[in-house]
Amino acid sequence: MLSKAAIKYINSLQLKKYRKQEQCFVVEGAKTVQELLASDFEVVRVFGTEKFRRSIGNTSVEFIEVSEDELSAVGEFKTNDSALAIARMRPSTPVSVSKDEFVLALDDIRDPGNLGTIIRTADWYGINKVVASPETADFYSSKTLSSTMGSFTRVGIQYIDLHTFLEGVKVPVYGAYLEGQNVHTTSFAKAGVVLIGNESRGISDSLAKYVTDKITIPRFGSAESLNAGIATAIILDNIRRSR
Amino acid sequence: MLSKAAIKYINSLQLKKYRKQEQCFVVEGAKTVQELLASDFEVVRVFGTEKFRRSIGNTSVEFIEVSEDELSAVGEFKTNDSALAIARMRPSTPVSVSKDEFVLALDDIRDPGNLGTIIRTADWYGINKVVASPETADFYSSKTLSSTMGSFTRVGIQYIDLHTFLEGVKVPVYGAYLEGQNVHTTSFAKAGVVLIGNESRGISDSLAKYVTDKITIPRFGSAESLNAGIATAIILDNIRRSR
Repeated sequence: MLSKAAIKYINSLQLKKYRKQEQCFVVEGAKTVQELLASDFEVVRVFGTEKFRRSIGNTSVEFIEVSEDELSAVGEFKTNDSALAIARMRPSTPVSVSKDEFVLALDDIRDPGNLGTIIRTADWYGINKVVASPETADFYSSKTLSSTMGSFTRVGIQYIDLHTFLEGVKVPVYGAYLEGQNVHTTSFAKAGVVLIGNESRGISDSLAKYVTDKITIPRFGSAESLNAGIATAIILDNIRRSR
Repeated sequence: MLSKAAIKYINSLQLKKYRKQEQCFVVEGAKTVQELLASDFEVVRVFGTEKFRRSIGNTSVEFIEVSEDELSAVGEFKTNDSALAIARMRPSTPVSVSKDEFVLALDDIRDPGNLGTIIRTADWYGINKVVASPETADFYSSKTLSSTMGSFTRVGIQYIDLHTFLEGVKVPVYGAYLEGQNVHTTSFAKAGVVLIGNESRGISDSLAKYVTDKITIPRFGSAESLNAGIATAIILDNIRRSR
């Protein structure tokens, strides 16, 4: 059964303020909870139906059996007929860029759906380090986590000061501009940072000085710009094909 | 001033049923209304602030002056401090594929945000014909229109039976599968249809027989799949670079 205290606690974790304070977050739905259990995240507690308990077999994680109605009444999903879990956030660690890897740097990506899609796309292209400005949407919100389609278990994110980070890196920093080099003909280095600008204003003026290589996605039609997630994907596809 | 009848009419157009019946749709926000006025859509009526009226100069379109509060009280936008317009849908026309163009075919894209992003991306890559199964999200919903970032004025969409359409085309039909040819090494034809499958189940089994060229976006990491909009963008980028 879901106690009043548990309901209150789960609901509080829908707010970033309380997630930060508790260093915990909520994951909803059968598939995502299963992926969470299979990951290296520390799972604090699972609330699930009897059917869900049977589907996962033995687990050392604390499991509290609840009804479908109880599940649908908490969390952000309209319907949830299987499970909800509370897990501990990963601790912050310093981010380094080795000589053979690409890292994504997100400059104020505000939309949780865009952030989730970017994490999923990074995972597809074998990039598992993402750094983001503190103003970027929260990785641990329900909307972001569900948009990653499970990739949040494999791709880590660190919220840091991008000025300090970019000043310290010793690899090329690629940034998309309207007047950069065509990504179709760019010879990308073996390692680098791909800096993705905000949905409305692009890359911040104060970060532009760290961009060593301005690149451009060639346009064949009339749209003014591309969605931030789409631009990220096309840049990553061109980086991977050129290696 | 906004009359009660006008409020009722605007609100009714948030529903697909009434949009279909009236063959009209609603557009919100200064930038989008301006793009609408500059397009070849027939604009029935604009509701806007005095400031907005001055910003657009002379127009032959019926203009009804309203306050910011009145605007925010109708429509789907949380805030709208400038304008809202009612325009007439374009009539359905038969879709043909000429010998030097690509057409997108959408097989049940259900998310309005994904549909809008696909329209915007098609516009970037110079594709202005999109056909979609009747189950695809509605082009004329507020969420879709705003996600297109103005591209709805340049890219048309026709809701049709995809079986009949695909059976009739005389160009290659490209469809993304896990076991297709790598898009990085595919020599694309000069014209074709790109068939994009549903977010959850991919391309329908019943449409698979029309796919002449199975293609694959190579994966370098661990994500199970890509978002439908992302996959569309990467395929279009690879088609355009190969020409």
